[in-house]
Amino acid sequence: MSDMKRIDQNARRSRALVHNGLVYLSGQVPDDRSTGVREQAGAVFKKIDELLAEAGTDKSRLISAQVWLKTMDDFAAFNEVWDAWVVPGQTPTRCCGKVELNDPRCLVEIVAIAALRNGAQ
Amino acid sequence: MSDMKRIDQNARRSRALVHNGLVYLSGQVPDDRSTGVREQAGAVFKKIDELLAEAGTDKSRLISAQVWLKTMDDFAAFNEVWDAWVVPGQTPTRCCGKVELNDPRCLVEIVAIAALRNGAQ
Amino acid sequence: MSDMKRIDQNARRSRALVHNGLVYLSGQVPDDRSTGVREQAGAVFKKIDELLAEAGTDKSRLISAQVWLKTMDDFAAFNEVWDAWVVPGQTPTRCCGKVELNDPRCLVEIVAIAALRNGAQ
Repeated sequence: MSDMKRIDQNARRSRALVHNGLVYLSGQVPDDRSTGVREQAGAVFKKIDELLAEAGTDKSRLISAQVWLKTMDDFAAFNEVWDAWVVPGQTPTRCCGKVELNDPRCLVEIVAIAALRNGAQ
Repeated sequence: MSDMKRIDQNARRSRALVHNGLVYLSGQVPDDRSTGVREQAGAVFKKIDELLAEAGTDKSRLISAQVWLKTMDDFAAFNEVWDAWVVPGQTPTRCCGKVELNDPRCLVEIVAIAALRNGAQ
Repeated sequence: MSDMKRIDQNARRSRALVHNGLVYLSGQVPDDRSTGVREQAGAVFKKIDELLAEAGTDKSRLISAQVWLKTMDDFAAFNEVWDAWVVPGQTPTRCCGKVELNDPRCLVEIVAIAALRNGAQ
């Protein structure tokens, strides 16, 4: 039996990978890039929530998040929706910087690592 | 009892998070951004040293460091102080690239992961 | 006995570090920067393959890869060689963004984490 569980895999990447009590996520981006940063961030959070659920955990178990914004002009707006999304008292470590993505309409990408629920493998 | 210990947490992030023998740090930036890259890097190293101490480890146990510089013009100067800070024979893995941060006066941000002391949980 | 094994270490960084069943790689860049992105990516993959072998594992055990491209104009060409390099059915999580590196001729840097072979320490 494999010690690695890959979730939603294609020829390029696994969208998530579970190994030794942690779930690693690929950089998550919004599908609809016609909207502003608040909507795009919300779409990314929804994807993260769904992947964490599929791995058997949730956002209260996030360990680290790396946030890439296309422009730091969106920093304050992004933080508003971020602060409303994270679980008070159970916030992850975070970093946030300006990194452009392939699609110029894409305003945000987030890479995250979370722990499985206590006792899960 | 929780298997996660969060250090210096606010509504947005934990400055450090201990889980399963590792401590993950949020991106550390200097408080005083009026200085040059050497001084800013030194301030970041001091913060990292303090967080590692609070987690019960030290820089000789660093596993990885991701260094973001505002400009690669600072690469040589940053490396000078970096090389003096790391422990000879116990250097972490590293990457370093140009990533702009929210405050344009902020010249450096470092994200690091370290192992707890051998045998610690 | 140490619980950390460092591979190809100099005064600045370890090129790889093995700890608790994982191997962490420093950002890998090509030595020859006179070539295009396909050749540079191939050189980086070769370095990663060699480091994973030295750590006792291989690319089928990759967990995550962070890809920095100097320009997203190289995204499609990079993906071509990436898709040919990864192991079908065993792809890692991935993120990819525009991050400039110190040497302006360097088009790609990759930071990766892999698991050791099942049962290895």
